[in-house]
Amino acid sequence: MNFDPIGFIEAKKSGRRHRPEDIASFIDGAVKGRIPDYQIAAWLMAVCFRGLSFSETLALTQSMAASGKVYEWDAEGPPVVDKHSTGGVGDTVTLIVAPLVAALGMRMGKHSGRGLGHTGGTVDKLESIPGFRTSLTEKEFRKIVDSVGCAVAGQDEAMTPADGLLYSLRDVTATVDQKALIAASIMSKKIAGGAPTIVLDVKVGSGAFMKDPGAAASLASLMIRLGRAAGRNVRAILSTMDAPLARAVGNALEVAEAIRTLKNETDRLDPLRILSIEIAARLASMCGRGSIRQARSRAGMLIENGVALDRFREMVKHQGGNVKVIDRPAEILPRAGRVLRLPSPREGYVNWCDAQSIGELVRDLGGGRRSRKDSIDPAVGVVIHKRPGDRVERGDILCEIHTNGALGSGETLERAMSSFSVVSRKPPPRTLLLK
Amino acid sequence: MNFDPIGFIEAKKSGRRHRPEDIASFIDGAVKGRIPDYQIAAWLMAVCFRGLSFSETLALTQSMAASGKVYEWDAEGPPVVDKHSTGGVGDTVTLIVAPLVAALGMRMGKHSGRGLGHTGGTVDKLESIPGFRTSLTEKEFRKIVDSVGCAVAGQDEAMTPADGLLYSLRDVTATVDQKALIAASIMSKKIAGGAPTIVLDVKVGSGAFMKDPGAAASLASLMIRLGRAAGRNVRAILSTMDAPLARAVGNALEVAEAIRTLKNETDRLDPLRILSIEIAARLASMCGRGSIRQARSRAGMLIENGVALDRFREMVKHQGGNVKVIDRPAEILPRAGRVLRLPSPREGYVNWCDAQSIGELVRDLGGGRRSRKDSIDPAVGVVIHKRPGDRVERGDILCEIHTNGALGSGETLERAMSSFSVVSRKPPPRTLLLK
Repeated sequence: MNFDPIGFIEAKKSGRRHRPEDIASFIDGAVKGRIPDYQIAAWLMAVCFRGLSFSETLALTQSMAASGKVYEWDAEGPPVVDKHSTGGVGDTVTLIVAPLVAALGMRMGKHSGRGLGHTGGTVDKLESIPGFRTSLTEKEFRKIVDSVGCAVAGQDEAMTPADGLLYSLRDVTATVDQKALIAASIMSKKIAGGAPTIVLDVKVGSGAFMKDPGAAASLASLMIRLGRAAGRNVRAILSTMDAPLARAVGNALEVAEAIRTLKNETDRLDPLRILSIEIAARLASMCGRGSIRQARSRAGMLIENGVALDRFREMVKHQGGNVKVIDRPAEILPRAGRVLRLPSPREGYVNWCDAQSIGELVRDLGGGRRSRKDSIDPAVGVVIHKRPGDRVERGDILCEIHTNGALGSGETLERAMSSFSVVSRKPPPRTLLLK
Repeated sequence: MNFDPIGFIEAKKSGRRHRPEDIASFIDGAVKGRIPDYQIAAWLMAVCFRGLSFSETLALTQSMAASGKVYEWDAEGPPVVDKHSTGGVGDTVTLIVAPLVAALGMRMGKHSGRGLGHTGGTVDKLESIPGFRTSLTEKEFRKIVDSVGCAVAGQDEAMTPADGLLYSLRDVTATVDQKALIAASIMSKKIAGGAPTIVLDVKVGSGAFMKDPGAAASLASLMIRLGRAAGRNVRAILSTMDAPLARAVGNALEVAEAIRTLKNETDRLDPLRILSIEIAARLASMCGRGSIRQARSRAGMLIENGVALDRFREMVKHQGGNVKVIDRPAEILPRAGRVLRLPSPREGYVNWCDAQSIGELVRDLGGGRRSRKDSIDPAVGVVIHKRPGDRVERGDILCEIHTNGALGSGETLERAMSSFSVVSRKPPPRTLLLK
């Protein structure tokens, strides 16, 4: 049967439902170049207005997953798990969760992305470790996962080419913010990644893609349904993203912060530590390794006793990175030429430390990308000294800005200051984990 | 200022109004290739959902008109007029109106299109006259208009390139049927054509693009407002397109029918004759040449006395065509290999003779195009012997089908038969001119 792309676009424009086989033909034609970009773009825009039903979204997800290489993992070895974050500022959780999961006796072979806009990317962060390779052959990748228990690689070009194509078009046609398209994009990659057990970290708040808890919960439940329909065990966490998750924002600075966390040098109430333990513990519990409470306590212990750090060290070594980074991060990681300090203009409490504007500042200092082709400066970033709820005296340092001069000092400090608000009364505590 | 196409698409997607200067930047960027097809396509789809306000539509029309060559005509000579039809079956009005307008002392330099789908194109029809050239330089074109009073050329590639681009994308992205886009497309070409006085023939009915009189009236009034805002004198006629307008459908057959009309060999109540006279008379009256009633009667006289035919002869001669076509059309025009006759299966009255299905039959016999690149067979077509309202006896010929065998005889006759309905009671008369 000949597939008619104009009729397909017309059907969605008129609000009709697509048959799964038509969605499969559309994705196949798109990937093979038979359906031109402008027809895909018109369809994407029609979807923004008409939406996709669950069965359409599932067909799209499955067609996209099947558009390229699909990983399979042996069922014999330790359970294979995966995680995904919808993107935040200072969200360096993968660097902690991957070795923690390995320490918990599971395997995580994760394909991660690069940063775009105000959010960073795990691959960029890891590449700030001298020698660290994120471009691995499938054979190398599998070997590291099997021997170390974890590996983090860049996107495998052979995986989900349909998602690559659709995403690149959505990015330039104002069709990014559609729930079904977002869910299909994420879940197609997770399904192609092959892990049977997946935890999704859906960010909510001013620094997240989803500003509204209701919309985030709805996206999370759609992704869970899609994953389950594809035979995966999927759970989701909603976590707040108003302030940066970690105290550090910027590639090398976040690696240093992850190492501090794995060395058990951070506070037990540190949000980065809490969220990392939560995700690892949920994965362990989903794989039948005890209750969630038991798994949380084991995960905490594996940070305290250095076992998780040891897995991180092995991963760095196997991926070609300089392992001295673990003992002497300040010496090994790239450092910015200048550090600016932002003093608090008054005494009181930090009420607000805006993730989005700090993410944008780091991007504009050279730490992120405005467009895919931009190169990044791994050394620059912001280290937050006072977080929301912290007491400050006048003159206390709110944050340090590591810069190589991409922006003037005056503008840098002004933008950093506008990311903070200091109030006289202690603000109510904020919840990290919403669900 | 840098124009941001993603923000522009996003604005329309969110239902915001564009500023005229942003529409101008968008069209300019599109024509110059700075804005890729997929962004244009996404915007077109957003317009289908959100619409365009009058001021947006006017800005679009003017930007499209200004995207290429704009004709100017001297104000000294006879008034320059133009007409446009939204497309019908057997609508060979231009072949009669152009010489009739010239006979009435006006000038018509018309750029016409080729046929696509079930409707024919004036350029294809004229090219069935051996030697007739529709590809004219601007100098030739102007010279013929000034000396003969009329010329019909194909689209000038240098005119309204923005319309060419947008139309070709609309055609393949299911975004054709949007009123503002249709109106801007038509009116940009009319404005670039330079005539100060324009009559629009908006077709309504089962064989027309607009099936519904309300939608057609709304399109007509939008085009009138656009033309007036651009300083043109514009009127519109709504005419029915349920049955083919002329007795002949097919390129050479329609030329023969136009010649019969200009020779005054057709009935005074023939719809093709009535509509042609109406359009020419309205143009004359709009140019201050008497009342519409006076103009109608003069136009009828100019057909009866052969003056209009003489203008047609001159136009054919000046455009390189074989003028013997006028005296011996059957001999000069291409003829199909075979003529099938469709007898009425019973006695009664013709209730219905469906323009769309006859148009599609002629297209599939080779007389039209499914896609722009198809070549056409000028000889094939349908000659209708019995029109809606006509009395028929069993066995009377309803129509003749001129074919070169592109379809089997059985299928041809079956499809022709299904275009007709013969009922026992005389149907009420139908009105040609709705407004």
